[in-house]
Amino acid sequence: MREETLQTRRRNIRRQLRQRDIDALLLTKSVDVTYLTAFAGHDSWALLTRNSMYLITDSRYTEQARKECVQTTIVERRGAIAEATGKLVRRLKSLRSIALSRSISLAAYETLKKNIAVPLKKVDGILEAARSVKDSGEMAAIKAAANTAALALEHTKPFFKPGITEIELAGTLDLEIRRLGSKNGFETIVAFGPNGSRPHHQPSGRKLRRNDTILIDFGATCKGYTSDITRCFVVGKPTAAYRRAYEVVTRAQAASIAAARAGAELVAVDAAAREVIRDSGLPVHGHGGGHGIGLEIHEIPFLKEDAQGTLQAGQIITIEPGVYIPGKLGVRLEDDILITDKGRQILTRKCPHAQLPR
Amino acid sequence: MREETLQTRRRNIRRQLRQRDIDALLLTKSVDVTYLTAFAGHDSWALLTRNSMYLITDSRYTEQARKECVQTTIVERRGAIAEATGKLVRRLKSLRSIALSRSISLAAYETLKKNIAVPLKKVDGILEAARSVKDSGEMAAIKAAANTAALALEHTKPFFKPGITEIELAGTLDLEIRRLGSKNGFETIVAFGPNGSRPHHQPSGRKLRRNDTILIDFGATCKGYTSDITRCFVVGKPTAAYRRAYEVVTRAQAASIAAARAGAELVAVDAAAREVIRDSGLPVHGHGGGHGIGLEIHEIPFLKEDAQGTLQAGQIITIEPGVYIPGKLGVRLEDDILITDKGRQILTRKCPHAQLPR
Repeated sequence: MREETLQTRRRNIRRQLRQRDIDALLLTKSVDVTYLTAFAGHDSWALLTRNSMYLITDSRYTEQARKECVQTTIVERRGAIAEATGKLVRRLKSLRSIALSRSISLAAYETLKKNIAVPLKKVDGILEAARSVKDSGEMAAIKAAANTAALALEHTKPFFKPGITEIELAGTLDLEIRRLGSKNGFETIVAFGPNGSRPHHQPSGRKLRRNDTILIDFGATCKGYTSDITRCFVVGKPTAAYRRAYEVVTRAQAASIAAARAGAELVAVDAAAREVIRDSGLPVHGHGGGHGIGLEIHEIPFLKEDAQGTLQAGQIITIEPGVYIPGKLGVRLEDDILITDKGRQILTRKCPHAQLPR
Repeated sequence: MREETLQTRRRNIRRQLRQRDIDALLLTKSVDVTYLTAFAGHDSWALLTRNSMYLITDSRYTEQARKECVQTTIVERRGAIAEATGKLVRRLKSLRSIALSRSISLAAYETLKKNIAVPLKKVDGILEAARSVKDSGEMAAIKAAANTAALALEHTKPFFKPGITEIELAGTLDLEIRRLGSKNGFETIVAFGPNGSRPHHQPSGRKLRRNDTILIDFGATCKGYTSDITRCFVVGKPTAAYRRAYEVVTRAQAASIAAARAGAELVAVDAAAREVIRDSGLPVHGHGGGHGIGLEIHEIPFLKEDAQGTLQAGQIITIEPGVYIPGKLGVRLEDDILITDKGRQILTRKCPHAQLPR
């Protein structure tokens, strides 16, 4: 990662800390650590002070950290991470206040409190908000992740043949993602027939039949950033019910996408798809209508019925309405959308929706 | 899962709650929820009371929960999980105290405290301790997971050919695991040559060369239980340094395994391997010497230099010493060991260690 990009990010966070009169921010979530240090490992925390950045890691990661981190002092710990952090803070005598996010575990928080004399301030959302608006490198990474996913799916389509199991089809897709030099953004969902009605179905030994349906929810990564795509296919001839669900979800998704622009209320973007499904008389998806993607597969903003706030230019979200009829069918379509100043850009264009046979 | 198994587990936990004068235990970790309900999904909590078990989940998982849960009342939430839990607790008027583990996030804990009038007691380790001693079904699952991993590795060996990348070899192994109806217990590590010196190396585009080395750290799962195996191979002819490291690690691992028995101090089992490596003059691994496996890939007991406590019959641990010389080589060998009343049983026998060519 370019040093300048990282310094811009740190400047932004430091400005917010100054406004809150906070001397340092402790990062305990992997993705937050990655965002401000470029370190891609795990089990490590970072401490951003007014002038420095520290990574608290262990011997498993020291070599990797030296390679990846930008402008960061690497502290190799021996004992528990919260204790090592306390020791570092005591060494940095000038700190008068440290902020952290409440995503930290209660256990780690209590250990920190015992080991750190300066006040710990709980601040939520600083990193989440910063991470949700993507810079040009992040946009390029997610675009690349979407293109890789699209290509891997194309390579997998020849395997859409009766007899293959959900597990093997998922494994085949995952291998294609890797052959393209990438990896899964999350565990691939492959659901045949009625299994599609479970939004978080785990691939099983269920075999693909003639006149069956396939739902695939998957993503590839690029530089730690993930894409998130859902597509539905029919092998042979769809039932009238499936065809109708597919058509309704297609219209519902188009309605949400059309509503997605900078300044739009999240709740309105979410509602646009729900209305189309509700009007059709089919059951509306119980999950959210979409979510931000980035270093995390689910990050703000979340499209939900009780969402607050608006979309901002630079955010990248998925839009993923669905129709689920337990024991019968499930259809979900999910694309990745970059919100721009002027409107939106669909990043998953290279992954075409299925054309259901007439 | 057999209902009886689950009831035995609940009885054990309830006995401990009674001893501590606690009415109910809130489970917020996925694996703890799985252990006491058989539910295999995520983002769900469970509440164990003196007479009942509740699963607090959302619409994505309701259908799956109905299918998987044993003797459990399923509560479908709409809002935040901590709020829904508060509501449930208010409905169960008889509860006078609720315990939870400090692995909960600080944010969720604070929300719970706002929503629950009865005292929240922090108790750590009840579930961890129970889960660490395996019942016969769990032993069978981990054995099956080890056998599946062994077979998948055999199927992958024909791909150990110059030109293949770390990423593609990892993907090939993962697909073989899936072809056997299983899935990865964790992200497969494949490291060629000097990359092996980073214990948590991420597979890269590095190609396998002639006279190269391969380190593979991987596992398969069975019913949610994971195996964890590391093997090292040489393509062509090993260097003298590699041969020596391999020989030392082999002896170090054998020493730890020989020390592993019910009642043995964790620190002694850990030290047995370290001593062999230290005596050889080679650098000793900076990570722990092994760890429990089960529903989690890393669970108690942990073999570490500062470990406290002893091994118990029924625990299943890995033993995984290594020698790492940055920029040069890395060797680690990891097997899965069931601690029995009389000694131990190696569960990874079907996955032979490499015979280095002379």
